[in-house]
Amino acid sequence: MNTEKYLVKEGQKVDLKDFSTKRDEKLKREVVERTLMPDNIRQMAELQEKLYAENTSSLLIVFQAMDAAGKDSSIKHVMKGFNPQGVKVASFKVPSSEENDHDYLWRIHKEVPRRGEIGIFNRSHYEDVIVSKVHNLIESSQLPPELQTEDIFKKRYRQIRDYERYLYENGTMVVKFYLHLSKEEQKERLLERIENPDKNWKFSAGDVREREYWDLYMNAYEAMLENTSTDVAPWYVLPADNKWFTRYLISEILLEKLKEMDPQFPEFPEEQRENMEKCRKLLEKED
Amino acid sequence: MNTEKYLVKEGQKVDLKDFSTKRDEKLKREVVERTLMPDNIRQMAELQEKLYAENTSSLLIVFQAMDAAGKDSSIKHVMKGFNPQGVKVASFKVPSSEENDHDYLWRIHKEVPRRGEIGIFNRSHYEDVIVSKVHNLIESSQLPPELQTEDIFKKRYRQIRDYERYLYENGTMVVKFYLHLSKEEQKERLLERIENPDKNWKFSAGDVREREYWDLYMNAYEAMLENTSTDVAPWYVLPADNKWFTRYLISEILLEKLKEMDPQFPEFPEEQRENMEKCRKLLEKED
Repeated sequence: MNTEKYLVKEGQKVDLKDFSTKRDEKLKREVVERTLMPDNIRQMAELQEKLYAENTSSLLIVFQAMDAAGKDSSIKHVMKGFNPQGVKVASFKVPSSEENDHDYLWRIHKEVPRRGEIGIFNRSHYEDVIVSKVHNLIESSQLPPELQTEDIFKKRYRQIRDYERYLYENGTMVVKFYLHLSKEEQKERLLERIENPDKNWKFSAGDVREREYWDLYMNAYEAMLENTSTDVAPWYVLPADNKWFTRYLISEILLEKLKEMDPQFPEFPEEQRENMEKCRKLLEKED
Repeated sequence: MNTEKYLVKEGQKVDLKDFSTKRDEKLKREVVERTLMPDNIRQMAELQEKLYAENTSSLLIVFQAMDAAGKDSSIKHVMKGFNPQGVKVASFKVPSSEENDHDYLWRIHKEVPRRGEIGIFNRSHYEDVIVSKVHNLIESSQLPPELQTEDIFKKRYRQIRDYERYLYENGTMVVKFYLHLSKEEQKERLLERIENPDKNWKFSAGDVREREYWDLYMNAYEAMLENTSTDVAPWYVLPADNKWFTRYLISEILLEKLKEMDPQFPEFPEEQRENMEKCRKLLEKED
């Protein structure tokens, strides 16, 4: 399947209206869920094992989206085939006072995956160019006033590009998903959270109030996509109105990425092999 | 006192032979130790209190040098006037297995000072362009082989410049000291560690073996100074053969830097002042 149309190329101008929020491939849900997804998940799990054994590179997957776009459920459904020993999910909520006392990448960098691991960010440093921008949080932040310049978000885009290139150059591949949800579908999902008792726990009145800022959010996301999608850390804009389709796309792109990384079981040096033969004999003598 | 001659300007070519390892100012040790140093330390402590109260910026002081150049004793003697509540020293030794499993700035970023704090790095990320270069540690590292390129140190210089600019733009000022020791003086100090029982604990045979690599170290330090001294995070090359003089220079430069940062006690808003008056009355009524 060609995933290229969801990719934001480095330097590309972005109008989110040009990106579909709905399923735009002719695929049957049943075929995807019964055959294609399980097959992708199996292949991903095999590659993950090699990545873990190789112990040199890591993969960082970033999720950003409006509320109810399906970040949590995508993580649950796409990543469930992975061995949890090599996977770490970090969710970034409102910063703590200790986190606010540091630069915005401080809490992020701590959670970057180890070599051999797959790291998943449920929200990320991109909150600092999204919610900070929409709600003008810089003014009330502890950043020294002389550093609260008009071009602060432009600076942050550059800082983030530098940071992700640094990660790439040191062995962490970054792939970023923006789950593109329509305002109508969000309304449906929020209503569902109110009506379905099993989903009440996910409901927050704040999510409803945030809908007033929908257009500002879209503008902020467009600027983010334009300024921070790079060859080494690309953004994908995925239609999010059909959850099963979103999940399938995520699995397709991650599988592509893992194949591209091409992890290998470490080669076993001849001398260690001889040693292994000695050990075999020792074990066999035991009886 | 003019400290400019110790500063490496951005883009400046560096030949360490041009920098003195010996005291090069006419100052009496007694005057420095009895009057000038205590006065600097007192002023620094006052500014530190303001920095802490202001709670927006932080200061990061980096020490790099050959063994026995006086890093530990400088930290001890220059920083002793600070309130320990606002100071954090981080010593970076041989990386742990967890640290090696991450990019080289991972362990560094965790230790960057909070807003209002003064952070001191006893060694730092610069080990990754010094000892890694002298002993060719990249080859045996866990960095993916395809990233072990010939220009790796050039890339690291750029990564470090980006990183320190990021810190500056987010409120952390960086000032870096290279303590410039002569090979002869190092010999004297290592002998002293062998002969003086109180100093035996500091002695390590490894330090003596490292002397074989002296010229390679000097080359690595020169390249580091040339490539990573910037306007926002400058290097100072300080003569280190006379400890009392080195310490005095450090105090002079830090005092300058703190004055330049010009921290202020936060202004007290009028409404809070009224509230304070109410609290005064409440307290006075208690009797």
